[in-house]
Amino acid sequence: MTYCVAMKLQDGLVFVADSRTNAGVDNIATFRKLHLFRIPGERLIAIQSAGNLATSQAVVSLLRQRLDSERDNLHGVPTLYDAARLLGQTLREVLQRDAEDAPQGHGLDLSCSFLLGGQIRGAAPELFNLYPHGNFISATEDTPYFQIGESKYGKPILDRALTFATPLEEALRCALLSYDATIRSNLSVGLPLDLVVYPRDRLAQVSSHRIDEHDPYFQALRKGWGEGLRDLLAALPAAPADYWR
Amino acid sequence: MTYCVAMKLQDGLVFVADSRTNAGVDNIATFRKLHLFRIPGERLIAIQSAGNLATSQAVVSLLRQRLDSERDNLHGVPTLYDAARLLGQTLREVLQRDAEDAPQGHGLDLSCSFLLGGQIRGAAPELFNLYPHGNFISATEDTPYFQIGESKYGKPILDRALTFATPLEEALRCALLSYDATIRSNLSVGLPLDLVVYPRDRLAQVSSHRIDEHDPYFQALRKGWGEGLRDLLAALPAAPADYWR
Repeated sequence: MTYCVAMKLQDGLVFVADSRTNAGVDNIATFRKLHLFRIPGERLIAIQSAGNLATSQAVVSLLRQRLDSERDNLHGVPTLYDAARLLGQTLREVLQRDAEDAPQGHGLDLSCSFLLGGQIRGAAPELFNLYPHGNFISATEDTPYFQIGESKYGKPILDRALTFATPLEEALRCALLSYDATIRSNLSVGLPLDLVVYPRDRLAQVSSHRIDEHDPYFQALRKGWGEGLRDLLAALPAAPADYWR
Repeated sequence: MTYCVAMKLQDGLVFVADSRTNAGVDNIATFRKLHLFRIPGERLIAIQSAGNLATSQAVVSLLRQRLDSERDNLHGVPTLYDAARLLGQTLREVLQRDAEDAPQGHGLDLSCSFLLGGQIRGAAPELFNLYPHGNFISATEDTPYFQIGESKYGKPILDRALTFATPLEEALRCALLSYDATIRSNLSVGLPLDLVVYPRDRLAQVSSHRIDEHDPYFQALRKGWGEGLRDLLAALPAAPADYWR
């Protein structure tokens, strides 16, 4: 499994991805699921993936291989909408190729989902959620975040605390707490986490940051949140006695 | 969908069930999913169900119809283990009958899951989780709660805050906050909630309590929790600046 979240907010974009992949609980490995395509000063495109790792790696590899080719590529497309279309087309191409190479299918689920977001100079930041068929939807002020993969454990904190107006730093904290909930409840999502916080219109060189199990900030955040939740629970009013008559 | 949670703690048992059933988002109804079998002073057995409503209603109806019969019944079985076996057998009987009556199946999923807990005089409280095949497991000090149905949204708060030693009243609060998270994030789980808090060795008449949307305590709990979470999030330390270099 995998858990990826991305946010399109007033002040910019936030992307966080875990790095655990598993084929059964006895076959766990670490793979990066957050991929950056950058031309400093001109564009930043971040892609996150969930689902079949062979498919998502093939898609990202093809997108990277073709950066210097004549055909449409992520360094050349004029808009992020076109970048999302290119990602969808590349996904369909990989699935089609695999279906032709192994028509019997072996009952494997080769599907995967992607989030794609970023900014190209002269246009606003954008964020898209690509479904396994390669079609996609765009984040809006009403729905400023998308999740792919194991999304349920970490959704309540986002639904409670995140709005389009949430400052980037607080949104990042909210995303990290969403991961904390997910990591506690599901073994198939795990550290390290890769993250990118992108302030709107920055367009300069942007790097991803990796959080591992020794990261002092993430440790302090998890501890403060866990203790705070238990204190808050203890401070809430007791249920009336007629609740258990 | 449905969400049911049950806890076996040092001080007794807690059962909470929502009451929403749906066959598609355009076909929503309210049905009780928490069923009590009681002989005041002698036994309390609570059964919660998730899954196909026709199957779970048939199982509970048969168990109730047979209370006065010569055959094994929930008012007569000597232990809660036997009660769980009887529930599992009745589930298999209903599934078998439906398979014979409609062998073509129509592709319907008729399966369901149950939680069964309670106490019989002279023995300790027990809690069992019955799988769709009628087999079951028992709650322990290490794993003092079970969930069936739409369990993921509400699991993080239980994993954080609940232990075998948690007092009943705090455990109930924890369960209600688990519902709050689930109801916010998933339309298919909804009010009213039915709950039973059972203090160990009580065995007197025990009633269930119903929480509807106007319940002042549940409203205050949700409000206090939501505001407390947002305050807590805002008070946590900000991420270091090198997180978005």
